[in-house]
Amino acid sequence: MDLSDVSTPGRVAEAGEGISEDELMLAARNHGIPLEALRYDVTPPGLHYLLIHYDIPVISEFRLVVDGAVHRPLSLTLDDLKALPAQTVRVTMECAGNGRARLSPRPVSQPWLTEAVGTAEWTGVPLHTVLSLAGLGDDAVELVFTGADHGVERGVEQDYQRSLTVDEAMRPEMLLAYRMNDAVLPPQHGFPLRLVTPGWYGMAHVKWLTQITAATSPFEGFQQSVAYRFRPPSGEDLGPVTRIAPRALLIPPGFPDFMTRTRVVPPGSTVLEGRAWSGRAPIAAVEVSGDGGATWVSASVEPSPHRWAWRRFTAPWTFAPGRHVLTARAFDESGEVQPVEQAWNRGGFANNAAQALDVVCV
Amino acid sequence: MDLSDVSTPGRVAEAGEGISEDELMLAARNHGIPLEALRYDVTPPGLHYLLIHYDIPVISEFRLVVDGAVHRPLSLTLDDLKALPAQTVRVTMECAGNGRARLSPRPVSQPWLTEAVGTAEWTGVPLHTVLSLAGLGDDAVELVFTGADHGVERGVEQDYQRSLTVDEAMRPEMLLAYRMNDAVLPPQHGFPLRLVTPGWYGMAHVKWLTQITAATSPFEGFQQSVAYRFRPPSGEDLGPVTRIAPRALLIPPGFPDFMTRTRVVPPGSTVLEGRAWSGRAPIAAVEVSGDGGATWVSASVEPSPHRWAWRRFTAPWTFAPGRHVLTARAFDESGEVQPVEQAWNRGGFANNAAQALDVVCV
Repeated sequence: MDLSDVSTPGRVAEAGEGISEDELMLAARNHGIPLEALRYDVTPPGLHYLLIHYDIPVISEFRLVVDGAVHRPLSLTLDDLKALPAQTVRVTMECAGNGRARLSPRPVSQPWLTEAVGTAEWTGVPLHTVLSLAGLGDDAVELVFTGADHGVERGVEQDYQRSLTVDEAMRPEMLLAYRMNDAVLPPQHGFPLRLVTPGWYGMAHVKWLTQITAATSPFEGFQQSVAYRFRPPSGEDLGPVTRIAPRALLIPPGFPDFMTRTRVVPPGSTVLEGRAWSGRAPIAAVEVSGDGGATWVSASVEPSPHRWAWRRFTAPWTFAPGRHVLTARAFDESGEVQPVEQAWNRGGFANNAAQALDVVCV
Repeated sequence: MDLSDVSTPGRVAEAGEGISEDELMLAARNHGIPLEALRYDVTPPGLHYLLIHYDIPVISEFRLVVDGAVHRPLSLTLDDLKALPAQTVRVTMECAGNGRARLSPRPVSQPWLTEAVGTAEWTGVPLHTVLSLAGLGDDAVELVFTGADHGVERGVEQDYQRSLTVDEAMRPEMLLAYRMNDAVLPPQHGFPLRLVTPGWYGMAHVKWLTQITAATSPFEGFQQSVAYRFRPPSGEDLGPVTRIAPRALLIPPGFPDFMTRTRVVPPGSTVLEGRAWSGRAPIAAVEVSGDGGATWVSASVEPSPHRWAWRRFTAPWTFAPGRHVLTARAFDESGEVQPVEQAWNRGGFANNAAQALDVVCV
C-alpha cells in the first residue's frame, strides 16, 4: 500500500458521464460566487470564490522564511511584516479551472461552471520590499513560494508550491497580504499570510505562505511543471497557465427557478448589468447578446481606477415574450475576445467561453 | 409560455445517473463546511454552510412588519429592533437536505454529502419580545415568516415563507438576529434580519425576514405543505421536517488526496476529534468505528454550556497499515442514534447516516 493506491492520474470523463462523487466532494467544499453578488464592487466575505487544494492548515507559530540565493536570509514574524509600509490593491481573482465543467469531454477535477471569481481589497507588504530586504543574488532567476497546505495530488505528496520569475515578482502590485477587505485574513483565504499576484489566475496566489526561496534555476515542482499547463488534444505541452483571459459575466436578471436556475423576467425594458475583467490587458469593450451570440450590441463599461479589478458594464435591454439565451463577451486592449465556443485543453484551464444564461420572458 | 415551462416537478435520479448540471449549478453557489473547519468552536465567516433557495435579495428600505391576528400591528426599523434588549445564542445549523446525494436513488435537488452544517453566534431580539409588543390575538395559532427572496420552485412562484406554531415561536431561544459572530449579518446569511430557530433544520431560519403574520389557521404555503415533508417510498405524507436529528462528524485525520479526498495517515497513535449535535435532545454519547460501523468504541464528549451548539468529542486511536473506513455516531438523550444505513425519503431530508471517511495508513 503506497500513495499510488490513493492518488491516481488525472482523467477525462466518459461521454455523457455525470459529475462523479469525487467531483461532488470538491464542489461541496469549494464554492463560486453567487452571480447576483456581481452587484458588489468588492465581494463581501464568504461570497468570494474559494478553491483549496488540500486542507486549511493551522499555523501555530508563524514565520515567513526568505532563503536560497539571497544575501540576507530572513525569518520574519507577522509583526515584522506589519511594521513595513503597507499597500492595498483591489484584485479580481479567478480560478484557472473556471468553466471546466462546461468542457466536453470534461476533465475530472473541481467542476466549475462560470462562477469561480471574486474581488477583494488585499492589504500587505509589497513583495519587492521583502525581496529587497533579503537582497536577491545575481544568480536568482525565480522565487519559489511554499504554502503550509499539505496533501497528495496525482500521486505526488507535496506542500503547495508555485514560482514566479524575478521580473514578475518585482512588479509593484505583487503583495504579501495579511488583510482582506480591511479585516484579518480568513483561515480559508490564507491566514496569516498569502501571496497576491494581481492579474494571474488563482493558482499563483499562494495561501498560508511560509517560505520564499530564491532559486537559481526554473522551479519544476508539480503545480508548475505538471499541473496548470496548457495541453491541447494532441497532448503536447503549450506552456504554463499564467494571466487571466478576458471574461464578462452578467448579473442574472429577474428571478430564478430553484432547480434549473432559469431566469424569469417580465416583458419590457430593463438594464442588464455585469462585470468584466482581464489579467492580460485593460478591458476595451463589452458586448451583450440575447440570442446566444448570433448578434451583439455594445455595453457601456464604467471607468475604474483599479487596474486589477473587474469593471461594471450596463446595457439597456428590452425583453420580448419567449425563451432567450443571454450572454456577454469582453474584449481587452491586447485584442483578445471571449469565444462563444470553448477550445478544449486537457486540464480544463482558462476556459473563458461566454456565459449562457437561460431566460424565459412570460 | 408560463412558469410550468420553466419550473418542473421534483424528480429522482435514474439508477447510476451522475450529478446533473442543474444539481451542479446549485452545488457551485451553495457550499458546505470544509470538514477540517470542525476544529473551530464557532465557524469562521465564510466557512458556515450556505443554502439559498432563490437569489440573495437587496433590501433598500427595511421594515419588519408584524400583522395578522395581533392587537397592535407593528412596522419596525432595524434601529427599533436594536433598541430592544438583545440576546446571543450559539447555534449549530444544518440543512435539512444534508446527506441527500448519498441516497439511492438520489432525489434531484441541492446535492449535499455530509457537510451542510456550521455553528454561529447569533445576536438579536428574542422573537417573543416582538410578539409580546404586538400582542397575539387569542385566535392566533401560527406565525408565518416571510423572507424577501423571490423565485419559482416546482412551478410555484413565491417569496420564501415558513411558519411556526405559537408555542414554538414563544420559546426563549427563538431569535430575530441582526448580527452573526459579533459582526453585521452578511448578505448571504440574511442581512439585515433573519429568524433563528435553534434546534431546527435550516429551512426554518428564514433569511431576509420582512414580515411576521399571526395566522388563525395552519399555514399551507409551499415550503410548509409541499416541500420539507417526510415521504417514504410508499408516497404517503408522514409529516413535516422539524428538528435536527443527531449527527457526529469527524475531522478528517492526516492529509488528503486532492481528487478523492481519501485521507493518508501514518501508522501509530493519534487522537480522533469531531463534533456532535442534535436538535431533538442533548447529546448523550458518541461512538467511533474504524471498520465502517461493524465495531464501535466510546468517545469522550466535552461538556458545553451551549445547548443549541455542537459538542466536541475525542477518541484515542491507533492506525495500522491498510485501508480503513472511519465513522462516528451520535446518541441523544431521547434515545435516538444515527444509522449506518440511510432510510430513504422522497425529498432526501434528515439523512443522518453515519459519515464514511476513507483512510489509508501507509
